Amino acid sequence: YIETLDMELEAIEKGGYDHFMLKEIMEQPKSIEDCLRGRVIAEDLHVKLGGIQQHLPDLLNANRIIILACGTSWHAGLVAEYVFEELTRIPVEVEYASEFRYRNPIVGKGDVIIAISQSGETADTLAAIEMAKERGATILGVCNVVGSSIARASHEGAYTHAGPEIGVASTKAFTAQLTVLTSMALMVAKEKKSISENRLSELLRDLEQVPAKVEQVLKLDSAIESIAEIYKDASNCLYLGRGYNFPVALEGALKLKEISYIHAEGYPAAEMKHGPIALIDEEMPVIFIATRDSSYDKVVSNIQEVKARKGRVIAIVTEGDALIPKMVDHVIEVPNIHEMLMPMISVIPLQLLSYYIAVMRDCNVDQPRNLAKSVTVE
Amino acid sequence: YIETLDMELEAIEKGGYDHFMLKEIMEQPKSIEDCLRGRVIAEDLHVKLGGIQQHLPDLLNANRIIILACGTSWHAGLVAEYVFEELTRIPVEVEYASEFRYRNPIVGKGDVIIAISQSGETADTLAAIEMAKERGATILGVCNVVGSSIARASHEGAYTHAGPEIGVASTKAFTAQLTVLTSMALMVAKEKKSISENRLSELLRDLEQVPAKVEQVLKLDSAIESIAEIYKDASNCLYLGRGYNFPVALEGALKLKEISYIHAEGYPAAEMKHGPIALIDEEMPVIFIATRDSSYDKVVSNIQEVKARKGRVIAIVTEGDALIPKMVDHVIEVPNIHEMLMPMISVIPLQLLSYYIAVMRDCNVDQPRNLAKSVTVE
Repeated sequence: YIETLDMELEAIEKGGYDHFMLKEIMEQPKSIEDCLRGRVIAEDLHVKLGGIQQHLPDLLNANRIIILACGTSWHAGLVAEYVFEELTRIPVEVEYASEFRYRNPIVGKGDVIIAISQSGETADTLAAIEMAKERGATILGVCNVVGSSIARASHEGAYTHAGPEIGVASTKAFTAQLTVLTSMALMVAKEKKSISENRLSELLRDLEQVPAKVEQVLKLDSAIESIAEIYKDASNCLYLGRGYNFPVALEGALKLKEISYIHAEGYPAAEMKHGPIALIDEEMPVIFIATRDSSYDKVVSNIQEVKARKGRVIAIVTEGDALIPKMVDHVIEVPNIHEMLMPMISVIPLQLLSYYIAVMRDCNVDQPRNLAKSVTVE
Repeated sequence: YIETLDMELEAIEKGGYDHFMLKEIMEQPKSIEDCLRGRVIAEDLHVKLGGIQQHLPDLLNANRIIILACGTSWHAGLVAEYVFEELTRIPVEVEYASEFRYRNPIVGKGDVIIAISQSGETADTLAAIEMAKERGATILGVCNVVGSSIARASHEGAYTHAGPEIGVASTKAFTAQLTVLTSMALMVAKEKKSISENRLSELLRDLEQVPAKVEQVLKLDSAIESIAEIYKDASNCLYLGRGYNFPVALEGALKLKEISYIHAEGYPAAEMKHGPIALIDEEMPVIFIATRDSSYDKVVSNIQEVKARKGRVIAIVTEGDALIPKMVDHVIEVPNIHEMLMPMISVIPLQLLSYYIAVMRDCNVDQPRNLAKSVTVE
């Protein structure tokens, strides 16, 4: 007695999900866990990236760290800039690889380049590191694909271990990049003794809790789907955040743009008053990443300004927030965590929101029009 | 025999133009001239900003220059980053003042802050420089309003001498900021001997020609008005440029957003393939700043990609360009100049385009909704 399985290979690969993107969003607790494994052990105050040993002294003594990337990886770089500067006190500059390589950038011996690329094949990033390498800089790669061109062109590096990412819109690669970059900053801070033992311990403990907290956010799945239903026909959208959540605003907007073709734009919230607030009316949904952190009060006043202009607001807030839910149209609550690690949590609802909106608009989620998974040409 | 003049004070102040904004756009040859007066004399290889004398050694020996600004001034800062790095080989970082002040930035003795603000009253910028000053940095102000708070809080500075700017959307202040910042970079490069005499001479000569070349672009007025007529009903728009013209793309998009309420977004052209290209269809006008410079070939291939996806393209090109006009829907020709100075020229048609589109949409050009001329609150 033989039963024929009526499943195609692709369906099996999707693990029961309708799309690779949703599968990859849902895998994040595991991919972040994989990324931390052996690298972070909070109770031992252990943080170590095996791939960065020989060039660790370069990092400890760096004049400057220059982060080169494109797209979503560039957003991970912006978060890393704040984390590295805060923890290690080394000045960090983040550049679009495409801009860096075509000017005559100031880079040389004593500078450390961190190149971020999921595929490890991004043409502009690869060319930019070749140029920096020629000028004497140390190149550290943060790639997902093992043995990729950027991984090979780097002096050393750390893989993100997120597993194959098939959906064109990057999700689990982004959170894995943040995990690696934060671990790298903590490793440098520990070696450099620029962080107290207490703070290191607190951050490592919080870092270990990221997978469980991401899991918790993923359970908001159907609540986020209901919000998507309301806004699926929007033609424009603004994403605003401050501090560590500013790059999350950029990333949230990019996700929506990529797969739903809605013109979404991210901004640091304070810049709103220098232009974008002119766009706000009843038709313009505004998404605030407004978790409890050191810029919370300022974000609250930005929300008030948008509401005063009749904007419709969706806010990502920390659970238990009693203030913002009274002011806005929709809230999505995420668990609390150290603000430096919040981007790994606060980006999750934005990934889901984009996903559901794109599905409702009948877009080809895994292969959006005009986009390639890796930009291997200039 | 008495004739009563039927003019109101405001009309007189507008000098015969319908709006302050148009008056201010048209004044740019004069405001740039005023800004250069006494500061740049090409035939003597003279470039000197009288306001920056005592702290010139700080600039010459700076570890880093950190440019702090918001809005349009932040875009001027992005151009200045490339110009300073190219000419003086001092590493430059540009930050949103609002982001800088709320983290714990790396700044201290040996760093030079350049604060850019038209009004000199921008609250975030003022607070940011107070913070940097406490930590020992040298503060140089680039303001338009004489005696303003930022001018007073700075150690030294250079005024932009653009005259009062009334229109909320900044135009002549922006080109004057570029003029001052470029002159400052040339002054430092000359003192530091990081520029050859030939190159200095060439750049100073080109700088002196900016007012006449801006004048030439302003004559395209009615041609630009015709293009505005075609696109006035667009709901979205992309602006793309590379290198020195990348910040011009951001600024062009901001102008349109501010006064016409069209959702326009600027991007470095190479980043298009990492997301924004998914937005391109017949409905999405794309404006390329594609003048003849070191990134020209790359911009041409970006234009081809947009055309292949049926985007409608308006290109700002250098006069005599034979290639791009065959590929795109509309071209606006601007006179040639050294690529470092091109932003002062290439931004002009974008100012006019925004102006005419806003007028045709019956928007309140001089006082767009929700916006204040100076953002004096956080």
